Amino acid sequence: MNFKKIAVIVGSLRRESFNKKMAIVLMALAPKELLLELIEIGDLEMYNQDLDDSPPSSWIIFRKHLTEYDGVLFITPEYNRSVPAVLKNALDVGSRPYGKNIWDGKSGAIVSVSIGSIGGFGANHHLRQMLTYLNVSTMAQPEAYIGDVAKLFNSSGELINESTRQFMLKFLKAFSDWGEKFPVEKQALLTFEANEMH
Amino acid sequence: MNFKKIAVIVGSLRRESFNKKMAIVLMALAPKELLLELIEIGDLEMYNQDLDDSPPSSWIIFRKHLTEYDGVLFITPEYNRSVPAVLKNALDVGSRPYGKNIWDGKSGAIVSVSIGSIGGFGANHHLRQMLTYLNVSTMAQPEAYIGDVAKLFNSSGELINESTRQFMLKFLKAFSDWGEKFPVEKQALLTFEANEMH
Amino acid sequence: MNFKKIAVIVGSLRRESFNKKMAIVLMALAPKELLLELIEIGDLEMYNQDLDDSPPSSWIIFRKHLTEYDGVLFITPEYNRSVPAVLKNALDVGSRPYGKNIWDGKSGAIVSVSIGSIGGFGANHHLRQMLTYLNVSTMAQPEAYIGDVAKLFNSSGELINESTRQFMLKFLKAFSDWGEKFPVEKQALLTFEANEMH
Amino acid sequence: MNFKKIAVIVGSLRRESFNKKMAIVLMALAPKELLLELIEIGDLEMYNQDLDDSPPSSWIIFRKHLTEYDGVLFITPEYNRSVPAVLKNALDVGSRPYGKNIWDGKSGAIVSVSIGSIGGFGANHHLRQMLTYLNVSTMAQPEAYIGDVAKLFNSSGELINESTRQFMLKFLKAFSDWGEKFPVEKQALLTFEANEMH
Repeated sequence: MNFKKIAVIVGSLRRESFNKKMAIVLMALAPKELLLELIEIGDLEMYNQDLDDSPPSSWIIFRKHLTEYDGVLFITPEYNRSVPAVLKNALDVGSRPYGKNIWDGKSGAIVSVSIGSIGGFGANHHLRQMLTYLNVSTMAQPEAYIGDVAKLFNSSGELINESTRQFMLKFLKAFSDWGEKFPVEKQALLTFEANEMH
Repeated sequence: MNFKKIAVIVGSLRRESFNKKMAIVLMALAPKELLLELIEIGDLEMYNQDLDDSPPSSWIIFRKHLTEYDGVLFITPEYNRSVPAVLKNALDVGSRPYGKNIWDGKSGAIVSVSIGSIGGFGANHHLRQMLTYLNVSTMAQPEAYIGDVAKLFNSSGELINESTRQFMLKFLKAFSDWGEKFPVEKQALLTFEANEMH
Repeated sequence: MNFKKIAVIVGSLRRESFNKKMAIVLMALAPKELLLELIEIGDLEMYNQDLDDSPPSSWIIFRKHLTEYDGVLFITPEYNRSVPAVLKNALDVGSRPYGKNIWDGKSGAIVSVSIGSIGGFGANHHLRQMLTYLNVSTMAQPEAYIGDVAKLFNSSGELINESTRQFMLKFLKAFSDWGEKFPVEKQALLTFEANEMH
Repeated sequence: MNFKKIAVIVGSLRRESFNKKMAIVLMALAPKELLLELIEIGDLEMYNQDLDDSPPSSWIIFRKHLTEYDGVLFITPEYNRSVPAVLKNALDVGSRPYGKNIWDGKSGAIVSVSIGSIGGFGANHHLRQMLTYLNVSTMAQPEAYIGDVAKLFNSSGELINESTRQFMLKFLKAFSDWGEKFPVEKQALLTFEANEMH
């Protein structure tokens, strides 16, 4: 059994975000072989290819920071049937410049969290499509669509639903097993572009 | 035949973006009953629900500006198999606060543009899923996946591929016919959330 | 106001299917300007391009029958995060041979129905992607994700949930308004293939 | 290094299918630690839950046969922006009855093949969404979108494009490395439904 460092990335900037609360729960519940650390993404300047030659310091720090992690755990709400812009921006910033994809080869897992009953399905699967390209090996099952989230926490931000807690323990155990298989070999993105051009 | 005002939104911030060049081509080729105007989205602050009570002026101006348009034409590259963060942010900013969705009821069309051969399929269809929720009635056919775009323009930024030009004339004619059917009745987003909670 | 004939296509073959029950509810609730008729798809032989030259009679009858309708209302469960094979087969059979797409130009609407709380989101949006290609103009809002469906009907197959009934009346009214805009001009599929090859 | 048995499933029934030709190429190019065997899916009766109590023999044989394999390689065309019905039916038949998912825990990889330039992107990613639910651990990179396929083979059905052959060798090597990590622990589907109902 290997010790793994996992970056936790939350797709909501709201101070009282249920996604942040869920991140805190997951960090507390993680088995000892998983070190979960929260990575801030709210201060990243919007990705613009023109800045690649002289990138903002926020990008440099973020990219460097991410290299320390074996895997990534995404906890995200759904905005308009997809991931929030702030999460997409973190993915875009980390994927560039061409040939320098910091996500490449890492393991991944997704928890989508919503106040509605659909549980963020649209965000969850859009994110999976993005991670395929970025060569993040994303755990299939258990899928985690956490709906009606406002009922799961009390006003102090504590998870009060025991079945959710049990599910999350199982989810983290599965992610721990999954993460032991990785990293995989890195794959330069330009290679796949070449393939597309057949 | 009605005269329609169409907002053109480009998903790339790069100065020499092929998507911007394509936008200029489309504005020039548009039939006289379509007025295409470029709307800037690069200066919008990242969406954060905590700012809803006292929104940045960039959001206020953007939301107000968009109300003048009958429809929206999206021209977008694909970043990591989805739309760029800057485009997602424009959608998110325009969709909030809850109950004030500026996209609601408009007509829409999508052109995805890529230097690869896949033509931005991933961005094109992720965007369609988002627009379903936002109640933008998006034209189905003709779909526009413009691949290998670097070969379609000369170094002065002029479209040199005649079949692309012919296709774009046909596309704009179809969008003009499509746009005459709209707007449709607005649908407050909260209604659909209620439905989800069955 | 025009009278419209709408084909109702159900994605489940199960005799006691909740989707069939929902179809019966919708046919009963439809406003008088919408004539909803159930079209059977369970007896269509699996699509195989080799049969295009001498198609099974089930295909011939189905294709001919569909030409009578102005629009299509899909009511579908989710199997494995997408539409059931039987529904995909109906779409495939109706779309061929190349250049003879019977769906082309019709209006469309989708109701996904599930015993789980996610309400068939995966099936709903996969179907939307297919309908884009087939040139079915699919209504955006109101989206209909009917979850936890087993609680909505009694043992006699009657809808007992009043808020679902009210939602369905609203949905059908919106579809009636939507359908008046169509058909749109047909678009031969080969044209779009040409476009893809840019 | 472990020897792995891989089921090859082709999404096209056409006798002269390019997907079948690609399957034959891949079987010939596979490294010696991968045994690739073609599994027929064309004779499976359409999935219908009512038959679960007394399933057709075609289903029984298919389900039993699949248990022999460690992983699955899907080679598929795109029909109407998704997978063909015949492939969806194989997935549906293999996934039922509830709690008996034969795909559960296997490794997977996808090659989409198209005569158009988009290379079957829509089929490729719809299939990925399905495989997430079925708990097939699907290789992320290299993605394989094989477009313009008619130019890659000669009239005798031989692959004549050397860069495609080199790519396929690399793809198979990556899948061999990937497959060594699996199977993963099985996950009964009912568990995830429970999760959805939070």
